[in-house]
Amino acid sequence: MTEYTSFDVAHLGNVELLTPTFDESLWFFRDLLAMRVVAEEGDSVFLRTWDEYQLYTIKLTAADDAGVGRTTFRTTSQEALERRVAAIEKMGLGTGWVDGEVGTGPTYMFQDPDGHTMGIYYESERYVATDDKPALKNQASAFPGRGVNARRLDHINYLAKDVVANGEFVAKALQGRESERIALDEGGFAAWWFHFNNKPYDIVYSAAGLKHGNRLHHIAFAPDTREDILKAADIFLENGIHIESGPHKHAINQTFFLYVWEPGGNRIELANAGARLLLDPDSPVVEWTQEERKKGQAWGMKTIETFHTHGTPIVKK
Amino acid sequence: MTEYTSFDVAHLGNVELLTPTFDESLWFFRDLLAMRVVAEEGDSVFLRTWDEYQLYTIKLTAADDAGVGRTTFRTTSQEALERRVAAIEKMGLGTGWVDGEVGTGPTYMFQDPDGHTMGIYYESERYVATDDKPALKNQASAFPGRGVNARRLDHINYLAKDVVANGEFVAKALQGRESERIALDEGGFAAWWFHFNNKPYDIVYSAAGLKHGNRLHHIAFAPDTREDILKAADIFLENGIHIESGPHKHAINQTFFLYVWEPGGNRIELANAGARLLLDPDSPVVEWTQEERKKGQAWGMKTIETFHTHGTPIVKK
Amino acid sequence: MTEYTSFDVAHLGNVELLTPTFDESLWFFRDLLAMRVVAEEGDSVFLRTWDEYQLYTIKLTAADDAGVGRTTFRTTSQEALERRVAAIEKMGLGTGWVDGEVGTGPTYMFQDPDGHTMGIYYESERYVATDDKPALKNQASAFPGRGVNARRLDHINYLAKDVVANGEFVAKALQGRESERIALDEGGFAAWWFHFNNKPYDIVYSAAGLKHGNRLHHIAFAPDTREDILKAADIFLENGIHIESGPHKHAINQTFFLYVWEPGGNRIELANAGARLLLDPDSPVVEWTQEERKKGQAWGMKTIETFHTHGTPIVKK
Amino acid sequence: MTEYTSFDVAHLGNVELLTPTFDESLWFFRDLLAMRVVAEEGDSVFLRTWDEYQLYTIKLTAADDAGVGRTTFRTTSQEALERRVAAIEKMGLGTGWVDGEVGTGPTYMFQDPDGHTMGIYYESERYVATDDKPALKNQASAFPGRGVNARRLDHINYLAKDVVANGEFVAKALQGRESERIALDEGGFAAWWFHFNNKPYDIVYSAAGLKHGNRLHHIAFAPDTREDILKAADIFLENGIHIESGPHKHAINQTFFLYVWEPGGNRIELANAGARLLLDPDSPVVEWTQEERKKGQAWGMKTIETFHTHGTPIVKK
Repeated sequence: MTEYTSFDVAHLGNVELLTPTFDESLWFFRDLLAMRVVAEEGDSVFLRTWDEYQLYTIKLTAADDAGVGRTTFRTTSQEALERRVAAIEKMGLGTGWVDGEVGTGPTYMFQDPDGHTMGIYYESERYVATDDKPALKNQASAFPGRGVNARRLDHINYLAKDVVANGEFVAKALQGRESERIALDEGGFAAWWFHFNNKPYDIVYSAAGLKHGNRLHHIAFAPDTREDILKAADIFLENGIHIESGPHKHAINQTFFLYVWEPGGNRIELANAGARLLLDPDSPVVEWTQEERKKGQAWGMKTIETFHTHGTPIVKK
Repeated sequence: MTEYTSFDVAHLGNVELLTPTFDESLWFFRDLLAMRVVAEEGDSVFLRTWDEYQLYTIKLTAADDAGVGRTTFRTTSQEALERRVAAIEKMGLGTGWVDGEVGTGPTYMFQDPDGHTMGIYYESERYVATDDKPALKNQASAFPGRGVNARRLDHINYLAKDVVANGEFVAKALQGRESERIALDEGGFAAWWFHFNNKPYDIVYSAAGLKHGNRLHHIAFAPDTREDILKAADIFLENGIHIESGPHKHAINQTFFLYVWEPGGNRIELANAGARLLLDPDSPVVEWTQEERKKGQAWGMKTIETFHTHGTPIVKK
Repeated sequence: MTEYTSFDVAHLGNVELLTPTFDESLWFFRDLLAMRVVAEEGDSVFLRTWDEYQLYTIKLTAADDAGVGRTTFRTTSQEALERRVAAIEKMGLGTGWVDGEVGTGPTYMFQDPDGHTMGIYYESERYVATDDKPALKNQASAFPGRGVNARRLDHINYLAKDVVANGEFVAKALQGRESERIALDEGGFAAWWFHFNNKPYDIVYSAAGLKHGNRLHHIAFAPDTREDILKAADIFLENGIHIESGPHKHAINQTFFLYVWEPGGNRIELANAGARLLLDPDSPVVEWTQEERKKGQAWGMKTIETFHTHGTPIVKK
Repeated sequence: MTEYTSFDVAHLGNVELLTPTFDESLWFFRDLLAMRVVAEEGDSVFLRTWDEYQLYTIKLTAADDAGVGRTTFRTTSQEALERRVAAIEKMGLGTGWVDGEVGTGPTYMFQDPDGHTMGIYYESERYVATDDKPALKNQASAFPGRGVNARRLDHINYLAKDVVANGEFVAKALQGRESERIALDEGGFAAWWFHFNNKPYDIVYSAAGLKHGNRLHHIAFAPDTREDILKAADIFLENGIHIESGPHKHAINQTFFLYVWEPGGNRIELANAGARLLLDPDSPVVEWTQEERKKGQAWGMKTIETFHTHGTPIVKK
């Protein structure tokens, strides 16, 4: 069939997480989130969720501090990749081509204004299940039926010194479309949500406060139902994982959420959007004032203090 | 913000349903599906779901027989509309421009090879809630909290004499991407699924059998959760609505489904996809053989006989 | 505590709630909880949940202040009633027989040590559905399919000056079996849970603090699923009902909960226990220390301050 | 039927299942239902569900044919045990006292009129978690977070030649209270449901048809939610377990169900009742006619043929 144009970026590709407690973090992703190790390389392992069509979702790397390494984005075509690379180069933020990792094709590396390391690629090897063959052939691999059963990576939320500058970068360099944002009374945004497809967000920038940018706020995985997230809370409780907040429903973008800290300290969200999609090609941005944000989350829960202070790497006082 | 190219068709726009029992059908959509009447015109009322950003979703029209009237599609831009009109005209299936209805801009009318009446448009008025203002401003109107609470229209499935010809038309005229299909042993397809966005399907053609094309198999609404569909089954049961099949899970595209017949006889589906999206821009089509289809639905339920025989208008023997 | 081989009390009978905003409270119970008015008498209406086998569940009475009026208990037999009356009389807390209300037989009135008004009865008229006939005849009436669809009353939680004295009264007078309790470091209990059947609690006493006993902490209704409670939160949000806390899971007795204040000020809980039942006839009491309670609720949410201070009637400072 | 003011039997104690494919059956219960092996003895292993307060739930025994071995019942007290034993002895169906197994005290053995082997006991050792300590101390052991996570045994359904005779035996010998039944047009019952507590059924007799009594129809486990049962269907599908019927909702007693055959051939149900309990001490029996049963299950699914023909041991033609 003929292929058609689309957003130039199709979706978040994969994310490298750094952890100072490698074995415990690996246990978290492999045993609790039911991810599968597909490759190992140096101080890193590559893990996939059960319905990821590509080879891997998370690269977990041993490091002195928690945090985020490289984030990649997959384009919708080779031409789209070239268009994005040209745009990034023009902005002077590109750092050049590298070989992709574990099934990922040639990747063009760049940095957002805040310094987060990013890459963009088009070619991608499709996962072929072997001993994890699914019963239904329209699924990437068998449903694991253990732990939290993370279906797919959903989005990433960065802490940045300058939310506006980084958001504008996403809009221009990656063609991200804004969906929602929190306006500060003094100007600028406290947080800004962007999407590349019908999901209401794929990448978010949150104000790092002070001077501590270039950090990770959280990454999120999408299970199928809110019940999955309630069960996840029980599983994290039984396994001694720090539950920071939730389950509850965000006012912004209405996501049903649960935030935990994996053993290395990185914040991980389990996020469910129900049947909510942004199908309107011209959907107007939804802006929230600071006054409105004081109401807390959708059902009134006050946002927990650490949500505004914790990020990785953890800032030493 | 800059707008970007995308699929030319954004989503199914709205659907006209014909019914020989107008009052009972209106009760079904308004009281059981919790839709809101936004306009009346001649023998028709226009109804909307609670999270539809446009003015209406269903035009319900009194008629001698049940069935589907006009189906429309919204494009992603004015240019996309022009591209699609040019393509349709070239195929000789266009019938010309008409004024859109109830908030819908200029609409170009055409027919699929099977004779189903269709329209395509770009301009669309956005719904502004008045007495149905939602608590969260990123929602089209208040959650009704009654009956089945249909959130949004999801897809349409047509009965056609020639599935292949009509599917190819969708691919060429509307740039639909195929997601799954059932191959017949003797060649051709028993059914073919197409999508315009990250949902795995928006429009489907099913073999009408015999000579009875140009009919409706069903339209589907998307509630948020599978639990919503289980509750819907209770509500339909209490209200004497014919439950044809389900709740169960389709093998194809893995939709959790419930099929009922609204009082006029049109088949209505409640469909939930969980967190399943087609994010892969190159997702290969999944083809099922007749042998594979014999296994029935995902969890083994045999497909009910009327699923292959009932459509609207109902064929008089 | 004494062990019993069977229960004389079958379940909580019904509860009278007092409200200073009668019309708004009636709207809450009838329109949001989907209860049905079965009788009116003076300043009161009698309402039932859809799967209550008796005639009514809540008597709603206009009053200057919110609070709880009479709570009744139904016994398992006439002999059980006589045994309980004899026990109460012996304790000197009985106030004599009255005619029951709206389908309730002769009722023996008494007070708990804290002064809450209570009644006990055996004879009870069974509800016969008329225009609310259910599709399945093993159900009291049709599933309403609107708002929160409260299935049945679940439990009552009183604020009392002396938790120990009142708990011992429940154990002796009503043969309540304790299930869980919070022990204070200085002795006594902060709260004490009792049950009359396989549900883990039917009546609870919570420390009123200070000198403000004889009040209501909350009453709870049981919907079928946790999803029902999540939907309820959306419905309360849309309707401007104060959501105090939740949805979340209690550590104690593991109930999935949502607390709201009905317009009159009375705290109402929606509570779901999943498949958890106390089937063990000798189940040992589970005691929690103050230290353990500091962990907050099951998934770590800190208990909201008003949960310890708000009760009805509201204490004027 | 005689009415009782209290129950001498507290609940189903445990069930011995026979299997011709011991290793595969053990895998099913241990790995898919997430049960834990607590003891082994000869050709048997003893397994427990995660929230069972006793030591074990299922005794799995290698045998030539599938089927049910001994079923036991726990009484509410020692006196209750003595009363039941006296009643059984008077009926001439007792076979004498034996030592209980794996934490179970002295057990009086007997047979129902159809020949099923049964035992009754009171003393029971309570499970003390070690490496499976739960995070919340009001739970028997940690939530396993794998497979189907069966919480507790729910009920047993026997195939018997004479449903009436066996039901009357349950009523007289065990003080079971009938909740629902299917009346045959020609007299007698096609199936009869009995309960010992607030659950609507603990033991059921179904007509074996022909001359093949003394068999097992199924045993059922209770997960917490309907969503658990939908996930269970996915897990059984992925693991090649034969799904016979469901998920769907029974008209009788309104249970949300899923029936599978464990590898040995025994039918296993996953059953969820929502918040439905029989709290009415005088709840009248609900009787269904054969005409009413023709409507199929609650949402209209026709009962699958094997539900009326398959039982264990499997009848060889």
